[in-house]
Amino acid sequence: MKIGIVGLGLIGGSLGLDLKTRGHEILGVSRQETTCQIALEKNIVDYASTDLSLLAAAEIVIVCTPIGSIASIVARLVPYLSPDTIVTDVGSVKEPIVEACTPLWSNFLGGHPMAGNTDRGIHAAQTDLFTGAAYVFTPTATTPPVAVEKLEAIARALGMMTYVCSPEVHDRAVAWISHLPVIISTNLITSCLQERDSQVLELAQKLASSGFRDTSRVGGGNPELGMMMAKYNRQALLRSLAQYRHSLDEIITQIERENWDNLERVLETNQQARPKFLN
Amino acid sequence: MKIGIVGLGLIGGSLGLDLKTRGHEILGVSRQETTCQIALEKNIVDYASTDLSLLAAAEIVIVCTPIGSIASIVARLVPYLSPDTIVTDVGSVKEPIVEACTPLWSNFLGGHPMAGNTDRGIHAAQTDLFTGAAYVFTPTATTPPVAVEKLEAIARALGMMTYVCSPEVHDRAVAWISHLPVIISTNLITSCLQERDSQVLELAQKLASSGFRDTSRVGGGNPELGMMMAKYNRQALLRSLAQYRHSLDEIITQIERENWDNLERVLETNQQARPKFLN
Repeated sequence: MKIGIVGLGLIGGSLGLDLKTRGHEILGVSRQETTCQIALEKNIVDYASTDLSLLAAAEIVIVCTPIGSIASIVARLVPYLSPDTIVTDVGSVKEPIVEACTPLWSNFLGGHPMAGNTDRGIHAAQTDLFTGAAYVFTPTATTPPVAVEKLEAIARALGMMTYVCSPEVHDRAVAWISHLPVIISTNLITSCLQERDSQVLELAQKLASSGFRDTSRVGGGNPELGMMMAKYNRQALLRSLAQYRHSLDEIITQIERENWDNLERVLETNQQARPKFLN
Repeated sequence: MKIGIVGLGLIGGSLGLDLKTRGHEILGVSRQETTCQIALEKNIVDYASTDLSLLAAAEIVIVCTPIGSIASIVARLVPYLSPDTIVTDVGSVKEPIVEACTPLWSNFLGGHPMAGNTDRGIHAAQTDLFTGAAYVFTPTATTPPVAVEKLEAIARALGMMTYVCSPEVHDRAVAWISHLPVIISTNLITSCLQERDSQVLELAQKLASSGFRDTSRVGGGNPELGMMMAKYNRQALLRSLAQYRHSLDEIITQIERENWDNLERVLETNQQARPKFLN
């Protein structure tokens, strides 16, 4: 199959590598001429161009650019596409993207391959990045079923587990397990830094070990990722944060009132529930 | 030096192993006769007994039992001790222990070796558990300086970094980096479980990966540890939780008001500050 990829960074580049080894013909588009050259040298694509017109021949186009640019790229892409071409994206939030892109192209299907690491750019592209990872597709009532079938088949061929749900369900689910953790984690660092006794703060910095390291990891990461999810998944994130704050008030009250039986029940429930999130 | 250890679990047993290889003579006391036998067989101690009178000959006694039993053990130990014997403990909270034990034995020095893992009991005892870890000592105005000097020397011989501060400073510092993370982490699981849309909850459980795993780790662990720190470090923990909640309200407001510049500043500050906690 001829598959177009717009944006040849970690995700787009890694998709190119794996899709090529599955026998697909890859047409890659990047803003940078040098990135096109590297993509050809590294065998990430069969053809590369800085011009979207390269994708006129593609049966499927995967837009792998940052969330903020996806809809404008789809708009610029439309004039070159055949009516049957399926367009998808890899953004980590789905509702605003699907809302913006579906009116532009009826054969659009939102997608979210949940793989990646903190590296960026075409030099970070790697084989088998997606093996064993989840790939969520978010059709609407008007999305042609064949688009879902074709993209699911491609994802499964990459060794991915596929899930299909509405954009809203996707965004609420990732708000819980991906976006809420970033905010509560960064707020751990924020609040520690509010300590006004310098002796306490310095000792805390010296004594911090694995518990602090793990709990603060996603909140102390790339600010761009935090900004993206807060901006684009704002509503679902605020919904999760409101629940988090409500539950936090309850646990603070239990500790204030020395309601140890209740606290123990909470800790036991959570110890038992956590493995359900770690399949 | 003759060193007594009361409680031959992970910490007491591992201390015995390492102190013996540094040439100390180890007198071990456990409630269980079988634990005494295992300690002798595993070369953790030179002498073992279920009776505290064994420790009459000790120059230093390290109480390695759970926080709730430390003061009562020190009280029962006192009749057997020579006036110069230094008594210390390994509890992870210091103010209540130091307050309870100092009136019982003027030569008492609170201590907290910050090593360990989730294993328990004498079978978990291992060599070099303490290498590179922090050991905090918490003298009061009345603690003899020689007690601090002797215990610091022993800790350094085990390859540990020693810190000396008041019990209160210790408890506030560990509230920030050890106890607050447990509560905010367990509250992540609590709040996710409040999701009433079963499709969203099930998808969240399926999609959760490293971000959720790391952020929920310490909060989904052994409930006993969470209970201990909430009970014994309640005041310092509530102080940290109050600040955390205040900062959480601020970040929620920023997201509600789409105050992206402020949010970006917070995320950038925290990305830069986190390495100071990870030396």
